Amino acid sequence: MNLDFIKFNEQGLVPAVVQTASDGRVVMVAWMNRESLAKSIETGLMHYWSRSRGKLWLKGESSGNTQRILRWFADCDNDTLLFEIEQKGGACHTGYRSCFYQQYDSNAQPVPIEEKPLFDPDEVYKK
Amino acid sequence: MNLDFIKFNEQGLVPAVVQTASDGRVVMVAWMNRESLAKSIETGLMHYWSRSRGKLWLKGESSGNTQRILRWFADCDNDTLLFEIEQKGGACHTGYRSCFYQQYDSNAQPVPIEEKPLFDPDEVYKK
Repeated sequence: MNLDFIKFNEQGLVPAVVQTASDGRVVMVAWMNRESLAKSIETGLMHYWSRSRGKLWLKGESSGNTQRILRWFADCDNDTLLFEIEQKGGACHTGYRSCFYQQYDSNAQPVPIEEKPLFDPDEVYKK
Repeated sequence: MNLDFIKFNEQGLVPAVVQTASDGRVVMVAWMNRESLAKSIETGLMHYWSRSRGKLWLKGESSGNTQRILRWFADCDNDTLLFEIEQKGGACHTGYRSCFYQQYDSNAQPVPIEEKPLFDPDEVYKK
């Protein structure tokens, strides 16, 4: 598989925007290196590169909340990727469906959150 | 306006994912510094920081294809932003509605593009 057209940054990474195919909700943005992109495409399951842990990770490896890839796109500069996925459970480690659960108003003040978390992180990520 | 909760990176930038409120199409991802974020929130129109030109830019200043902000969100880490917007014309400098017009298949080969550009960039960005 030739991924040479993807422009990874100086750290060898490219940002991946992930949205659900069903309703277009953007659930997360994370980083991929070449290996995690290849693994994602080959397996059909989203894999990322964790900058903090310095390792490849399969999304859902702890929580079971995997992301199955339906379609993927590169942008006009080939330096950002977009994945349309099927999300099991919630995407966010907080339990919310999306990492973008906190809206802000036109004064940059947080808007009360109406949706509820889909799971309890203490239960899902327990030691 | 207090934007101190936003975690700008080492270059003072944060990525902004932009999707249309009407149908959830992700049209672009670009970078914001503190000034462009403040300006976006204050004016209700998307402003970015151009890394290549080293300047603030109002999206649509050349093309007229502005982006009016309806809602905005920060993610769980406060290091990525999501904007739901109303897009005038096409968002991409190529004339396509979205910068993510090129899909790739499970062999990383480009999928034929069915949609048509919304404008001719030679016309819109003429000197």
